[in-house]
Amino acid sequence: MLDRAHFEALDEDDPLAYVAGRFVLPEGIVYLDGNSLGPLPAPVPATTARMVEQQWGEGLIRSWNDNGWWDLARRVGRRIAPLLGAPPDSVIAGDTTSVALYKAVSAARRLVPDRSVILTDRGNFPTDLYVLDSVAEQTGGTLEMVAPAAIEERLADDVAVLALTHVDYRSGRRHPLAELTEAAHGVGALAVWDLSHSVGAMNLDVSDADMAVGCGYKYLNGGPGAPAFTYVNPRHHGKFDNPIHGWWGHADPFAMNLSFRAAEGIGRVQVGTQPIISLAALYAALEVFDDVDPKALRTKSERLVDGFITLVDQQLEGFEVVTPRSPEERGSHVSLSHPQAADIMAALIARGVIGDVRPPDLLRFGLAPAYLRYVDVWDCVDGIRQVMEEEGWKRARARSGPVT
Amino acid sequence: MLDRAHFEALDEDDPLAYVAGRFVLPEGIVYLDGNSLGPLPAPVPATTARMVEQQWGEGLIRSWNDNGWWDLARRVGRRIAPLLGAPPDSVIAGDTTSVALYKAVSAARRLVPDRSVILTDRGNFPTDLYVLDSVAEQTGGTLEMVAPAAIEERLADDVAVLALTHVDYRSGRRHPLAELTEAAHGVGALAVWDLSHSVGAMNLDVSDADMAVGCGYKYLNGGPGAPAFTYVNPRHHGKFDNPIHGWWGHADPFAMNLSFRAAEGIGRVQVGTQPIISLAALYAALEVFDDVDPKALRTKSERLVDGFITLVDQQLEGFEVVTPRSPEERGSHVSLSHPQAADIMAALIARGVIGDVRPPDLLRFGLAPAYLRYVDVWDCVDGIRQVMEEEGWKRARARSGPVT
Repeated sequence: MLDRAHFEALDEDDPLAYVAGRFVLPEGIVYLDGNSLGPLPAPVPATTARMVEQQWGEGLIRSWNDNGWWDLARRVGRRIAPLLGAPPDSVIAGDTTSVALYKAVSAARRLVPDRSVILTDRGNFPTDLYVLDSVAEQTGGTLEMVAPAAIEERLADDVAVLALTHVDYRSGRRHPLAELTEAAHGVGALAVWDLSHSVGAMNLDVSDADMAVGCGYKYLNGGPGAPAFTYVNPRHHGKFDNPIHGWWGHADPFAMNLSFRAAEGIGRVQVGTQPIISLAALYAALEVFDDVDPKALRTKSERLVDGFITLVDQQLEGFEVVTPRSPEERGSHVSLSHPQAADIMAALIARGVIGDVRPPDLLRFGLAPAYLRYVDVWDCVDGIRQVMEEEGWKRARARSGPVT
Repeated sequence: MLDRAHFEALDEDDPLAYVAGRFVLPEGIVYLDGNSLGPLPAPVPATTARMVEQQWGEGLIRSWNDNGWWDLARRVGRRIAPLLGAPPDSVIAGDTTSVALYKAVSAARRLVPDRSVILTDRGNFPTDLYVLDSVAEQTGGTLEMVAPAAIEERLADDVAVLALTHVDYRSGRRHPLAELTEAAHGVGALAVWDLSHSVGAMNLDVSDADMAVGCGYKYLNGGPGAPAFTYVNPRHHGKFDNPIHGWWGHADPFAMNLSFRAAEGIGRVQVGTQPIISLAALYAALEVFDDVDPKALRTKSERLVDGFITLVDQQLEGFEVVTPRSPEERGSHVSLSHPQAADIMAALIARGVIGDVRPPDLLRFGLAPAYLRYVDVWDCVDGIRQVMEEEGWKRARARSGPVT
């Protein structure tokens, strides 16, 4: 049986312990919802204050040049690129993840005009499904959703674009990115990945993928609604046709030409003027990763998840581990199913352990390797155990009845 | 001949003088580029600091509900609505102006499927032209650009959507919004307006217009790249079909349904998770308008521009006033043409008077009524006069030669 001392020992040996010191977390909170909103990195408050009071307040319009606002989206992209295994100028920040996906999948679809199917899986995040359906409708194609395990079987020469989310937002199940990319290429399709639930928690390699998008506010800790990022494989830079032509994607934006001419390279992914304060927060947040090896993040993530699952097996009854037990098949969060998931999570949050629920019956715990301590895993599972044992909780359960 | 005392007297009688006190402007700067980036409203720094350090840092994921992040885009919309003459729940913030225009014009185009032409004028802001062209291409239509004065003549029953920018970003020339909207409706077309260069500097009435978008960072002073806003006339709320379906526009986003069902009302304009820090800055910035009558803004704007043009006539030689002299035909900035526009502006900025240039030969001065003093107009024109007279400037001019 594992005990708290076991996790304390892991913390003492943790080569990433210094990274946790770069985050501001409230006292008495075990924060396991960073897969939804990452916590505050220490460099952010001073950066946003300087951004607002000096760069905007004093520099005014001059800061577009003097303070590098104009290429901030690119500089954010350069900080994200190593986390994706991507070359520096193949990633750029901007827009929301949904709009970024719309742009990437539309552009991918246009690169394979003679086929009609956009293929995805039913477990994809709903907004991705909605976006893919919009693209399919507008480009005279069809969106096909199959079970996650049936993707490879369904790949055939009518598929234009395979569009998947790498790590499932509910179960934590992870698609094999390299294998499915290769399988898509094998039938002449392009592969576009949503990395929202993986980037910042593991090492990635998008060097074969055609395009990828992801979220700035989960494991990248860029703040609520932080701008998304888009990766375009350099082999597509010359042919990426943005479905929304806008001046930020123009080769010469200040020429104010009547007709659009796409910028060279990754710049053509851009459309309009980006929210610079939020972008500056994301840029500052990414600083915490500058000297961190993504492989070390992955190693710690696997150990956190292993410890969590082992403790669930040893300490809890009535909970099913929904997340795959094999590290190769999962991301960095763990989901447990329980018929009273919502009530249990409310009681757990009241004790200072923050995860979240996904209806109907999942409790989700994000085990972010950048800032969590191993003892957080112990404290969480021990907290669940206490919640299940305590008198008040039993009364609440009797009152509210099972969640169906 | 007007003198500085004349402008000082106008300031003493200015019923909006109290509003200027709500902005932070650097000492010694006359800031006439608020039509490009508005200055810092006083409530913003404390709001963004609280937002980052308390709401994000301490509240973490709980702030989506506890601090109202979830409906912040709507609350921003409610603050903008009175400036548009729009009902409270017909305006929502989010995305960039380019993406907002793409959504609005695409949705308008779908409401008139049996026609093919999107009509605009050649003076429209280039990004608007690019966006309109994207929509035309994707919906099997044509973008037609005519001279600004030829719009009404070109309106005919093949026009699906009239899409115009209210105030021309170069000349300051203003389209008659109500008249052209009525003319569009007269031929069965819809009218979509870009109000980026008018909102916050004048009273508006969009009650007949079909849709409108605008920029959060010009006269609304929401900070660099602040999110845009979208107005949809309530008569279209039930039929607005967003070209990008995303979870924020879903009727029940947390049901995580496989298929999209549009939210009731203005919420369906939304797509993905918005940059909350930038949105919070915009919300705080708009507070300065809460007790300000947009008509009073317009009255002051007209007086500022009248004073500016009179002074140019009296004090300067070799400059042509490009902006219409009739208040009914212009917005809130003044453009002067001069062959050495770029050099003159550089010299003026070095003296602390900040405007900008638009190639090939325009000097632009934004006369924002919310925070400018009448003496700023005097100081600007007097600054231009001094620049033209001073020895150093003559040498610079001789060295650099005319700008062609």
